[in-house]
Amino acid sequence: MNEAPHLTFDLDTTGVSTGHLVVPKGADCEALSLPVFSCNRGKGPRLLITGGNHGDELEGPIVARRLVEWLPEAQKCGRIIIVPEINPLAVQAWTRNTPIDGKNLNRVFPGRSDGSVSERIADAISRLLLPMVDTIFDLHSFGPTWNFPPAVITHPIADVDLMTKTLRISEAFKLPVTLLWEHNDTAGMFDTWAHSQGKIFICAEFGGGTVGAEALAIYEAGVRNGLIALGLVEGKAEYPTFREQKSGQTLETNPSDQLKSPAPGIFEPRCSVLDEVKQGDLIGILHPMESLSADSIDIRAPTTSIVCGIRSGGYVQGNEEVASLARPLAL
Amino acid sequence: MNEAPHLTFDLDTTGVSTGHLVVPKGADCEALSLPVFSCNRGKGPRLLITGGNHGDELEGPIVARRLVEWLPEAQKCGRIIIVPEINPLAVQAWTRNTPIDGKNLNRVFPGRSDGSVSERIADAISRLLLPMVDTIFDLHSFGPTWNFPPAVITHPIADVDLMTKTLRISEAFKLPVTLLWEHNDTAGMFDTWAHSQGKIFICAEFGGGTVGAEALAIYEAGVRNGLIALGLVEGKAEYPTFREQKSGQTLETNPSDQLKSPAPGIFEPRCSVLDEVKQGDLIGILHPMESLSADSIDIRAPTTSIVCGIRSGGYVQGNEEVASLARPLAL
Repeated sequence: MNEAPHLTFDLDTTGVSTGHLVVPKGADCEALSLPVFSCNRGKGPRLLITGGNHGDELEGPIVARRLVEWLPEAQKCGRIIIVPEINPLAVQAWTRNTPIDGKNLNRVFPGRSDGSVSERIADAISRLLLPMVDTIFDLHSFGPTWNFPPAVITHPIADVDLMTKTLRISEAFKLPVTLLWEHNDTAGMFDTWAHSQGKIFICAEFGGGTVGAEALAIYEAGVRNGLIALGLVEGKAEYPTFREQKSGQTLETNPSDQLKSPAPGIFEPRCSVLDEVKQGDLIGILHPMESLSADSIDIRAPTTSIVCGIRSGGYVQGNEEVASLARPLAL
Repeated sequence: MNEAPHLTFDLDTTGVSTGHLVVPKGADCEALSLPVFSCNRGKGPRLLITGGNHGDELEGPIVARRLVEWLPEAQKCGRIIIVPEINPLAVQAWTRNTPIDGKNLNRVFPGRSDGSVSERIADAISRLLLPMVDTIFDLHSFGPTWNFPPAVITHPIADVDLMTKTLRISEAFKLPVTLLWEHNDTAGMFDTWAHSQGKIFICAEFGGGTVGAEALAIYEAGVRNGLIALGLVEGKAEYPTFREQKSGQTLETNPSDQLKSPAPGIFEPRCSVLDEVKQGDLIGILHPMESLSADSIDIRAPTTSIVCGIRSGGYVQGNEEVASLARPLAL
C-alpha cells in the first residue's frame, strides 16, 4: 500500500516553521516533496498562499518566495501557509500542464489519491492544507503568450454572501483591474472546489508576458494590500503605479467577449491592454501565411469596450482566443 | 532523384510579384513552400529580408508581413525580396528549433541539399536567394524568455571594411541599442555564411518578451529607417520612442559579460533593461526551490555596466545565462 499524503512538520507549531508536503508516489512517478512555509501567530484569519499551479506562470512562485522572506517580521496575527510551487514538475518544464500526465492541475480538483500525479497533488492540497484555512490566494498569471494587466479574477459564485466577500477582498488588492469572469470551463478548478467548501478564494492573475522587475513589484504590492485588508499585516494599502496611473477598475467579461481568430495564421496585436475601443476599432490582424497574395483579416471590436487581454503576436489556430474584452461591472 | 530547391516565379519580373520558394522533400518530411515577395524597381541596392528563423521570435514575421503591404507604394528603386517565415515548422510550433529534426536553423548554414529539413531550408536560401542580393536584414528577437531592448546586433567581422559598413547601417536603424556581440557559438550562423560571401548582414534582435502593438511599432520604424539609409524608400529617419526616450547607443558585450545562474532554481530579475549598474549592484536573485530554509543567492554586477538583457523570471538550470551586461563601444 502506498503511503498517504502527509506533512513533514506540524502546522500548529507556534511562529515560523518550514517543511514539506509529501505527495505519494504513484505508477507515473516517485513521491514529490513540496516546500511549505508556515507562520502561526495564533488567533486571526487563516490564509493559504499557493503559486506555480501552472508551470509557465512564474510571478506567483517568485512573489511567494519574497513573502517567505518578509512575513516572519511583518505578520501580526493569524496563520499563513505558503506553498510557492504546487506543481514543480510543470515549473521546471515551463509548461502550463504537468508534463508527466499532460493534465491541467487546475482542472482536477479535488484530486484523487490513486490518480495520476496532478490528481495526487490536488488530493494532497485538498486534504491537508485547504481544511486548515478560511481564505486562499492562488497566484496565477497569464503566462508568456498574453498581455494582461495585473488583476484579481473571480468567477461568478452562486452564494451571494461569498461572492460579495470575494469581490471586496479582490478589490482590496488595489490592482489595475478586478475582473468578474464568466467562464464555461470551470469544472475541477481549485477555486470551484474551495467555494464548495465555503472558502474565500482569490485568484490573482498577475499580468502576462515577460516576468520583469517592474511587474513583480506591482504583484508584490497587490498581495501586501490583500494581507493588509485581511488584517494579517499592518500598513497602508496604496495603488501601485501601472502604465503611469495609480488606479483600479472593476470589470466584467463573459464568453461572448472573447474574440477568436478567423483562420490559422500569425496574429498581429494592434492595441494594448486597458485601451478603450469603440465598435469597429481595430483590435488586431490575422495574417494567413501560406500565401502573400491572400488578404490579411482585420479583427475589430464588436462593441464599445475595454481591452482586458490581448494575445502576444504569434501563430494561432483558427477559432483560438486572441483578445478578451470587458466592461465596467454593473452590479 | 529528388527535385532541386526552386522558386515558383521569376525574381527578375519587374514590379511586384509573389510566389514560393520550394524546399524539396526529404526522408523526414514533405516539400515546404515558403511564401516569397519580390519588388523589383530596377537599379539600386538589392536586399533580402527574412523572418521566422527561430519559431518563437514572431516580431520578424509580423514586421515582414507589414512591409509586404506598404513597400509596393513606397519602394523607389532596387530590389527587395521578403520571406516572412523561413522556418514555418518552428513558427507553427512556437519553438526556437525546428521540431522535426531538433536543429537550430541558424546553426546549419549554408545547409545541405541531402540533409534534414533545417539543412534543406538553409541550402535553398543559400543557393537561390543569397546570390541575388548585397544586403540581408534577418529579423530576430530575444523571444519570450528575455527582456531585451529593440536592437541591431552584429558579431565582430574580420573584414574591417565590411565591419564598418555593417555598423553604419546598424546604427541607421536608430534603435535604442546597436550591439557588437562577441560570441563563441557562431559556426553555421546565417550571418557568418553571408559574411563569407561578402554580404552586409543586419541581424535585428527586436527585443524580447510579449509581442505587443507598441513594440511592433518600434520594430517597424527601425526597419523603415534601415530602408531609408539604403536609399530604397524615401523619408526622414527618426528615433522611435522607447521607455520615454528617443535615442540610441552603441554598446559592446563579450562572453565574460554574460551572468550565469549559480544553481538551479527560480530566477527573479531585480533590474530592467538599459539600467546602469555599478559593481555590486543587485541584478537578480536565484531561489533554490527544494527547501524554504535554503538561502536565496544574490547575483550582482561584477563591474560598472549597462544591463542589455535580463532573463524573464523563470526556472533556470545551474550555469544558465540570466543577464547580459554591456558597455559603450570603444572603437
